[in-house]
Amino acid sequence: MRAAIIGGTGYSAVELIRLLQHHPYVELETVISHSTAGSEMDSIYPHLTNIIDRPLTALNIDSLSEEVDVIFFATPSGVSKEILPKFLENGLTCIDLSGDFRLKSQTVYEKWYKKSAAEQKHLDSAVYGLSEIYQTAIKEAKLIANPGCYPTATLLALIPVLQHNLIDCDSIIVDAKSGVSGAGRGLSLGSHYSEVNENLKAYKLGKHQHIPEIEQILNQQSGKTSPITFTTHLVPMTRGIMATIYASLNTPVKTGDIIDLYQDYYQDHPFIRICKEGIIPTTKEVYGSNYCDIGVLADERTGRLTIVSVIDNLVKGASGQAIQNLNIMNGWDVQTGLEYIPLYP
Amino acid sequence: MRAAIIGGTGYSAVELIRLLQHHPYVELETVISHSTAGSEMDSIYPHLTNIIDRPLTALNIDSLSEEVDVIFFATPSGVSKEILPKFLENGLTCIDLSGDFRLKSQTVYEKWYKKSAAEQKHLDSAVYGLSEIYQTAIKEAKLIANPGCYPTATLLALIPVLQHNLIDCDSIIVDAKSGVSGAGRGLSLGSHYSEVNENLKAYKLGKHQHIPEIEQILNQQSGKTSPITFTTHLVPMTRGIMATIYASLNTPVKTGDIIDLYQDYYQDHPFIRICKEGIIPTTKEVYGSNYCDIGVLADERTGRLTIVSVIDNLVKGASGQAIQNLNIMNGWDVQTGLEYIPLYP
Amino acid sequence: MRAAIIGGTGYSAVELIRLLQHHPYVELETVISHSTAGSEMDSIYPHLTNIIDRPLTALNIDSLSEEVDVIFFATPSGVSKEILPKFLENGLTCIDLSGDFRLKSQTVYEKWYKKSAAEQKHLDSAVYGLSEIYQTAIKEAKLIANPGCYPTATLLALIPVLQHNLIDCDSIIVDAKSGVSGAGRGLSLGSHYSEVNENLKAYKLGKHQHIPEIEQILNQQSGKTSPITFTTHLVPMTRGIMATIYASLNTPVKTGDIIDLYQDYYQDHPFIRICKEGIIPTTKEVYGSNYCDIGVLADERTGRLTIVSVIDNLVKGASGQAIQNLNIMNGWDVQTGLEYIPLYP
Amino acid sequence: MRAAIIGGTGYSAVELIRLLQHHPYVELETVISHSTAGSEMDSIYPHLTNIIDRPLTALNIDSLSEEVDVIFFATPSGVSKEILPKFLENGLTCIDLSGDFRLKSQTVYEKWYKKSAAEQKHLDSAVYGLSEIYQTAIKEAKLIANPGCYPTATLLALIPVLQHNLIDCDSIIVDAKSGVSGAGRGLSLGSHYSEVNENLKAYKLGKHQHIPEIEQILNQQSGKTSPITFTTHLVPMTRGIMATIYASLNTPVKTGDIIDLYQDYYQDHPFIRICKEGIIPTTKEVYGSNYCDIGVLADERTGRLTIVSVIDNLVKGASGQAIQNLNIMNGWDVQTGLEYIPLYP
Repeated sequence: MRAAIIGGTGYSAVELIRLLQHHPYVELETVISHSTAGSEMDSIYPHLTNIIDRPLTALNIDSLSEEVDVIFFATPSGVSKEILPKFLENGLTCIDLSGDFRLKSQTVYEKWYKKSAAEQKHLDSAVYGLSEIYQTAIKEAKLIANPGCYPTATLLALIPVLQHNLIDCDSIIVDAKSGVSGAGRGLSLGSHYSEVNENLKAYKLGKHQHIPEIEQILNQQSGKTSPITFTTHLVPMTRGIMATIYASLNTPVKTGDIIDLYQDYYQDHPFIRICKEGIIPTTKEVYGSNYCDIGVLADERTGRLTIVSVIDNLVKGASGQAIQNLNIMNGWDVQTGLEYIPLYP
Repeated sequence: MRAAIIGGTGYSAVELIRLLQHHPYVELETVISHSTAGSEMDSIYPHLTNIIDRPLTALNIDSLSEEVDVIFFATPSGVSKEILPKFLENGLTCIDLSGDFRLKSQTVYEKWYKKSAAEQKHLDSAVYGLSEIYQTAIKEAKLIANPGCYPTATLLALIPVLQHNLIDCDSIIVDAKSGVSGAGRGLSLGSHYSEVNENLKAYKLGKHQHIPEIEQILNQQSGKTSPITFTTHLVPMTRGIMATIYASLNTPVKTGDIIDLYQDYYQDHPFIRICKEGIIPTTKEVYGSNYCDIGVLADERTGRLTIVSVIDNLVKGASGQAIQNLNIMNGWDVQTGLEYIPLYP
Repeated sequence: MRAAIIGGTGYSAVELIRLLQHHPYVELETVISHSTAGSEMDSIYPHLTNIIDRPLTALNIDSLSEEVDVIFFATPSGVSKEILPKFLENGLTCIDLSGDFRLKSQTVYEKWYKKSAAEQKHLDSAVYGLSEIYQTAIKEAKLIANPGCYPTATLLALIPVLQHNLIDCDSIIVDAKSGVSGAGRGLSLGSHYSEVNENLKAYKLGKHQHIPEIEQILNQQSGKTSPITFTTHLVPMTRGIMATIYASLNTPVKTGDIIDLYQDYYQDHPFIRICKEGIIPTTKEVYGSNYCDIGVLADERTGRLTIVSVIDNLVKGASGQAIQNLNIMNGWDVQTGLEYIPLYP
Repeated sequence: MRAAIIGGTGYSAVELIRLLQHHPYVELETVISHSTAGSEMDSIYPHLTNIIDRPLTALNIDSLSEEVDVIFFATPSGVSKEILPKFLENGLTCIDLSGDFRLKSQTVYEKWYKKSAAEQKHLDSAVYGLSEIYQTAIKEAKLIANPGCYPTATLLALIPVLQHNLIDCDSIIVDAKSGVSGAGRGLSLGSHYSEVNENLKAYKLGKHQHIPEIEQILNQQSGKTSPITFTTHLVPMTRGIMATIYASLNTPVKTGDIIDLYQDYYQDHPFIRICKEGIIPTTKEVYGSNYCDIGVLADERTGRLTIVSVIDNLVKGASGQAIQNLNIMNGWDVQTGLEYIPLYP
């Protein structure tokens, strides 16, 4: 299968390149970049020297449609909604890592993204690529809306207890923390080393565009309309997301029973690892890998459940899950090309 | 006023030394260390070379009682409860930075600390040194139980809205994050550089000994008995604590009105700074200083209040507040010796 | 004495503000910023909230000349050479933290800075503000060219052995390492968190503009013309410079004897601390302070001397030394306003 | 081929596990640990959960000799010299990552390691496993002394110009910098997070045990006996080594010509990447990979050559090179199992 990446100088793109390099069934044909077309890849990313010896190219929709079978969009929000539909028309498979096709409602998109939305028919046909949950739909999809990094960590942690009706949907609070690579390679004071190092910052309180994405799925799973409280923090590290999630238990349950429930729920899903009782995962345990590790505590004192979920934001939170979805779409083993052991230390 | 520090090689002690050095009314007479008595201070902390040129000394309660007027205990839990009472009997003022005298109930101490408690009469007479809240009692105290770092950040953020009955006491969730210096200078895998760097970890879920400390004060303020959910995280940075606090609002309130309330509440307290609407504080803003910065958001969508509170764990969360309490006890300006501007960047 | 800072949003400026705040003889009257005039200081630097409550102002040379006695130029290279001379004409004292007046030769400036140089008469009258070495000239100066951060660490380490003719001037190699704050607050990929964190980089090999600055002083001290090899590295930390310096010994000398020599040389200079034999300083030992710590090893095996010198690049390497020079110019104790103990940890 | 690792809880061992997991020709049969035998691997390294589901075992030389064909010794110095010879006698292939068999002279070993040396006959038969340089001898070896991390970075950088007689052997100065993982997982104040973070430290000046290792090879290559100056620094990052190397050029040469020389020299060696003129490598470019990237500058002003060499200390500096050597010994493609693209960012 021949693939292309559009948006080739961002961190998600460079992570796609790393992961696709050893994928046995995919050949990366071309990397498209609007801003740096013509440059050699290794002049922009020296770590790719002697590995990817090819120039970045400009976008030509028609010729690209001839050359490849699948396109990964690693573009900022607002870009793929303009160009992706043309590739769909040309019969290509599209996996969009941006937020353009994740929300089903144009109104909601426009409210949270402050941009005009994609066409409704494409929002309708897009399949939300949370691999472990929507694999049946993913198999049939032509357009995958690859989930955001925070929603991936949050939803994989919440859906099992929500489906089992163990928690009160109206009580969900997500305190999420991310490494700085989630903010991308674009320059800003908020990613400037001396401002971020030895600093911890909460940002976009009540305004993060991942809020409606999480709520859309939670509401679909629970059948209710419950707003969540969701806070994001920037942690002085490059990779990793942790979601610490709080919810009231509907009835008293023991931690061990909840762990059993998660293990059952995810037993056929090799990328989800459930921690034993008393163990809470750390972000470094999944560094550079496609794993999502989940630990839980049901606290008798408070009647609340605490769930801690960790991923590598660039792998399971972006490029790894995109490839996982491609594997599912093609009927390949879900781990194909993704058997990376976490880098430790 | 002549002072001594017991527990002289820990980070709280070395921070006390830094802050006392320029205090106009306090002379640091001696630094006591059990484990390193006889060593020169600068052989243990080279940054003190030519500044503190004196050896650490062993503890002799009687002679020390002659030499000084006030003692700071920067000892691990379980130490001050043994030796502090003798200094009280000898008429000295004692400021204990450990947790030994913070909890009023021996049973609660023994449950959470897994150690035998101090004598009840000392627990009864100890004044909880949360400077801005208990200044009247602090003025009269002979024994100050200096608050823990997490409780300081949490309580200063919660008490104003609790006193005004704005939030539901049963809904309080505290998601706290700390730099690694809070774990002290003792060696452990959990403070080993390669394990901590590029890593984020939640720890002691539901078991942290600061939980009963926070609840004791909250319950006293609210008149109710409400367990809180409290989670601590270790962040790859040296200094800084952030408490992100969630609670349900009893009635809809605007963010601006809550900010006004905080500003009124803390108007005579120079170390508390309330952020303007839309601004949330970062830990680096208080680095090396005694400030506690607080930002709030009342979210209409969810009916919840989010409060973000930041301190330097070694200053306002330990040694700075200890000196602030000494200032209050002596009727000195509360900022005496503490006028440090945060180090930025 | 009334002071102003021009270039008020950079890290050197904000460090000047921190240090001047408690200086007993200096009143900071105004902070000038071209780019952000009219903004409140705390909107740009929230850590200054309630400390510096004043707006940044635009530059008006004539009115400013009335208002203040001394001006600190914390501007990028190429700015002070245009405006500083007018303040000199108006009789003000000028301390320039940029490189515009450090090099005596216009040709050399233009070669290394790729900009047109200041007028020769001002280059002639400027005094190089390496406080410990040129205090006699500094006392009489009206225009101080405050040294660069790397030259400060390097020259303080080399001058004692050079003056005693212990090393071969033609053999000097300086391997220098700096924290990222030295690159300032301006955005660049080289200061982008995810590019700098977990990374070590050598930069500007053979081209750094501090090379001629160091050579000018070394040649003046030795009476010879010797090019040095000088390499700079960017270390993933915010503050701190270390210069590891190598030179061939003219004759075999013992490490202890060289330490004695340094101690004699700097005995009246409280900011220079010489390490005992076997001790090599670390950058954290001087964090936030005006100290320069120096350690040496004379290696019998190789006949070479290794000198390690550390400073805080923003204090002794910039703003601290600027204030030290102001103290010298005014006959105040050299430590006035600079008695900060290093922040540790 | 069946393999075992002895010393299974250190960072080199865990990196061997990561790299061997996908090696097509090697099966990791067992991991031996003296201190933690009986523990599950994932209780010590949670990132290996569901990947390595086996307990660590105690050492039994005879049964282990039956079970496996090759043993990797990831033990502290002083251990393999005791036990490795018995495996040799039993006919196994041994790859020692410690320093026990690197030095040919017992006297030199004992001087620098302060321990008794291995038997001379084993020192004589051991082949120094610097893969690119000694591949002929490696092919025939039964005992590989895998090079140290600093020597790997240093020697790969120096040997091409030394063999071409371009530099003066007596002028070599190596200023080396390492991430903290090089110090291993053993607890020490020198690896304690709050002491290392925001700190840069030079250590073991003139005393590092890698000095004689480097000199032994350099002298063998040059035919001369020249002591080098070698300084190691600890950088606040987990992985990565940079060696900045200085030497006097015997005759003036252009940078471009030296780059050509390196490219010729290493043209058949895929793990060595030579930077284009004007480019100097950073440690992050090789993160998690077996590459060694080299950049050079011949400085006309000074007549000196500066060479910058970077590796990942745990891969090319330890476990990756060990596997590379195993590949060479078995006639497999040298990249087998090592095709990891650097993790960036």
